[in-house]
Amino acid sequence: MSVGLVRPRVGRVTIFDTVPLDALRRRTSEKWRHYPPDVLPLFVAEMDVPQLEPVVRAVTDAMLLGDTGYPSGSGYAEAMAAFAADRWGWAVDPTTTRLVPDVMLGVVEVLRLLTDPGDAVVINPPVYPPFAAFVDHADRRLVNAPLAADGRLDLEVLERAFGEATADGRRAAYLLCHPHNPTGTLHTPAELRAVGELATRHGVRVVADEIHAPLVLAAGARFVPTTTVIPGAIALHSASKAFNLAGLRAAVAVPGPEAVDDLARMPAVVADGVTHLGAIAQRTAYREGGAWLDEVLDGLRHNQRLVADLLAEHLPAAVWSPPKATYFAWIDLRALPPVRAGADPSRLALQRGRVALNPGPTFGIEGTGFVRLNLAASTAVLTDAVGRLARSLEDVATDS
Amino acid sequence: MSVGLVRPRVGRVTIFDTVPLDALRRRTSEKWRHYPPDVLPLFVAEMDVPQLEPVVRAVTDAMLLGDTGYPSGSGYAEAMAAFAADRWGWAVDPTTTRLVPDVMLGVVEVLRLLTDPGDAVVINPPVYPPFAAFVDHADRRLVNAPLAADGRLDLEVLERAFGEATADGRRAAYLLCHPHNPTGTLHTPAELRAVGELATRHGVRVVADEIHAPLVLAAGARFVPTTTVIPGAIALHSASKAFNLAGLRAAVAVPGPEAVDDLARMPAVVADGVTHLGAIAQRTAYREGGAWLDEVLDGLRHNQRLVADLLAEHLPAAVWSPPKATYFAWIDLRALPPVRAGADPSRLALQRGRVALNPGPTFGIEGTGFVRLNLAASTAVLTDAVGRLARSLEDVATDS
Ligand SMILES: Cc1ncc(COP(=O)(O)O)c(C=O)c1O
Ligand SMILES: Cc1ncc(COP(=O)(O)O)c(C=O)c1O
Repeated sequence: MSVGLVRPRVGRVTIFDTVPLDALRRRTSEKWRHYPPDVLPLFVAEMDVPQLEPVVRAVTDAMLLGDTGYPSGSGYAEAMAAFAADRWGWAVDPTTTRLVPDVMLGVVEVLRLLTDPGDAVVINPPVYPPFAAFVDHADRRLVNAPLAADGRLDLEVLERAFGEATADGRRAAYLLCHPHNPTGTLHTPAELRAVGELATRHGVRVVADEIHAPLVLAAGARFVPTTTVIPGAIALHSASKAFNLAGLRAAVAVPGPEAVDDLARMPAVVADGVTHLGAIAQRTAYREGGAWLDEVLDGLRHNQRLVADLLAEHLPAAVWSPPKATYFAWIDLRALPPVRAGADPSRLALQRGRVALNPGPTFGIEGTGFVRLNLAASTAVLTDAVGRLARSLEDVATDS
Repeated sequence: MSVGLVRPRVGRVTIFDTVPLDALRRRTSEKWRHYPPDVLPLFVAEMDVPQLEPVVRAVTDAMLLGDTGYPSGSGYAEAMAAFAADRWGWAVDPTTTRLVPDVMLGVVEVLRLLTDPGDAVVINPPVYPPFAAFVDHADRRLVNAPLAADGRLDLEVLERAFGEATADGRRAAYLLCHPHNPTGTLHTPAELRAVGELATRHGVRVVADEIHAPLVLAAGARFVPTTTVIPGAIALHSASKAFNLAGLRAAVAVPGPEAVDDLARMPAVVADGVTHLGAIAQRTAYREGGAWLDEVLDGLRHNQRLVADLLAEHLPAAVWSPPKATYFAWIDLRALPPVRAGADPSRLALQRGRVALNPGPTFGIEGTGFVRLNLAASTAVLTDAVGRLARSLEDVATDS
C-alpha cells in the first residue's frame, strides 16, 4: 500500500531543488564519492541541500581568524538548550549537560557510565547499524527487541528483552532511537511512559539517541523528549543530522532530572575529542537555523508526497508509510517477485538500476527485503531514482 | 643555566609577529577565552599564527559547496604518506594505515588492540597529561617510567617498568611520546633501538604518539620514525599540532611492518568518528603546507633564542634547554626562592603576573617546580610574558 497524499504542485521548487546535480557531484563526501558517477546515491544520511549561510560564515570567519584551536565555553550547550526550549518547550539546564565528540561516541561513554563490560544493551532492530557495532565494540552484550511489524515499539517483546538483559542480576541499558532510524517512527508519550515503567521495574537504564528530533514531518506530530517522561534517562542531541553537519561533529548528553549525578561522573577526558570548528558550526545552526530548518522540513514533506506518488505509479507492490520523522523512506519490497525469490533489492537496484539505497539487512535481519531511501534529494533525482528502482526490480524475471 | 644562543635581530619579524594581539583576542578557542583578557595566555598547545591559506580555502570551499557530510576515500593517508616521504624519507604504505578521529582516540583504540582491560601501559612522566587520563579511562593500569633528569629516556628505569608491567604474565604496552611533550626531547635511533630490544625481551608492545614529529627545531637533528626502528610498533600521526588544526581533527595510525595485521583488526566503527572537514583541512595542510611549516619552524627557532636571552636577563636562576622539537619550553624554576619554599610557579605567574603557563605537576609529580611555556607566540607577547613571570617570582619574598 502506498499512501496517496496530495500530488505535488508541478514545478514546485523546494530547498532540495536548489543545488544542481553537477554541484552535488563536486562534493567529496561519502554520498557523492563512494560510488562511480553513473550511480544515483540515495543511501548515506547526507542531505542534498546548500549549507545554512550563517554556518558557512561562522566557519569561514573562524578559519580567516586562525581560530582553529581547542573548544572553550558552554556556547554549544546553551544554543542547544535555547533550540530545545523554542522547538519543543523543553527546559534543558546546560550546566547539567556534557559535551561529547559526536552522538555515537557519546552513546558509548554514557553506556560506560551505566553498565559494565559484559552487561547487556537492548536495541530495537531494524535500527541504525552502528548501534550494534558500537555496543559490541564497547564489550557489551546485545539483546535484540525487534520493532513490531508496524514499526512501533513492541512492549511485550521489550519486556522479555529487559528480563533477559537483567536475568543474571547485572546492570543493563536500553538504547532507544527516538525518532527511530530507519522506520521514521516517532515514539508517543504513552509509549515512552510504558518504556519508563518497564525500565524501572527491571532496573534497566534508558539512553535515548535523539539526533533526528528536529526532523519531525508528520502533521500535528510532536517530538516529546525522552527525559521529560523518563527522568532517569540520558539523551544525546546534535545538530549533525538536521543541519547536515556530519562533517563538523559535536553532540551533547542531556540527563533527565534523576540522571544528573550519573552524567556528572563522565570523565573530563571525554570532552577532549570535541572539535572547536564542529562546536562553532553546530552552535550557529542551533542558534540561527530555525527558518532554514523549516524550509528543509517543508521540502521533505514535499518529497514524501512525491515518492508516495512515484511508488504508487511505478512500484505499486512496494509497501511503506511516510516517516513521521527523519528523512528516510523505509520501503518493504518483499512482495516483488525477485525479492520473494530471495534477491536483495538494494543489490538489484545498484547493479541494474545504478541507484544506491541502504540494504535493509544492514539494519538487522528484520530488514530483509527492505531498502532505506534517502528523501533529502531533488525532485529530479528522486523521480529518476524511483524509476530506476522500479525497472531494476521488474525486469529481473526476464533474466532468470 | 640558560643557553646563550644568537641574539635575535632587532625588529626581525616572523610568522608569529603577523597576527596582532587584538585579532588573537577575537579567537574563541581555549587559549584566548579560558582566562580573562588581562591574562597573557602561554599555556594550551595552540599557535598564534595565521592559518595556512590553502587550508582556509579548502574548508571555505567545502562549506560553500555544502560538502559537510561523511568522509570518503584515502586522501588523508596518502597526503600524510607523501609528507612523510618528503620530510623524513619514510615510506608509509597508506593501504596499511587506519584513519582515526584524533590522536588520543587513536592511541586508545590501538591500546585496545594490543592489551586487555587491567593490562599495564608504561608512560614516561613528565608527559602530556591525557596519556595518564586516557589510559586510566581505558581501564588499563598505568606504570610510570620517569624520564631521566636530562629529559631523556632512562633505559634502566624503563626496563624495570617493563618488568613490572609484565610480571603477572599479562600483555602490556608502552606509550612513547616522540618527540616528547613537554620536554621537547627527540629520541635518537640508538635510544629507539634500545627501546625495541627491551620491548621485545619483555613482550611489551610499543605505541608511538608522533604528533609533534614535523616540529623538529634543533640544527642537524632529524626525526626518526619509531616504526622504522621498531617494526612491531604502531605510530599515530596528525597535522593537528604542526598546522594548528586541533579544532579540525583527524589522525592516522601507521603500523610497523610487523604490526600490519594487528592494526587490520581495528573495527571499522572506529573510523565512524572521523570528521570530513577535519580530513579535508589536514589533508590540505600535509599536501600544501611545506613552506608555511618551514616559516613556523624558523619562527620557533627565533623564539627559542629570544626566550633564552629573556630568561638569561630576567630569570637567570631558571634552568632549561631549548627543545629539540615541539613548541614548548620546559622550564625548571626550582632554584627560585618561592618555589624552593613550596610555591607552584605557574600559580604565582597567573595570580601575580597574569600570565598563564601550564603547571609542571599536571604532567606528573616529576614536573613539580617546572612550568611549560608555549613558544608559538609573538616577540612582544613572549617578551611581556617572561618579564611578568620573572616579576611574579621575584617579588614574592616581600609578601610572605
Ligand atoms: C540514529 C543515529 N544516531 C547517530 C547518528 C550519527 O551521529 P554522529 O555522527 O554524531 O555519531 C546517525 C546518523 O545518521 C543516526 O541516524
Ligand atoms: C603528545 C600529544 N598527543 C596528542 C595531542 C592531541 O592530539 P589529538 O587532539 O589529535 O588527540 C597533543 C596535543 O597537544 C600532544 O601534545
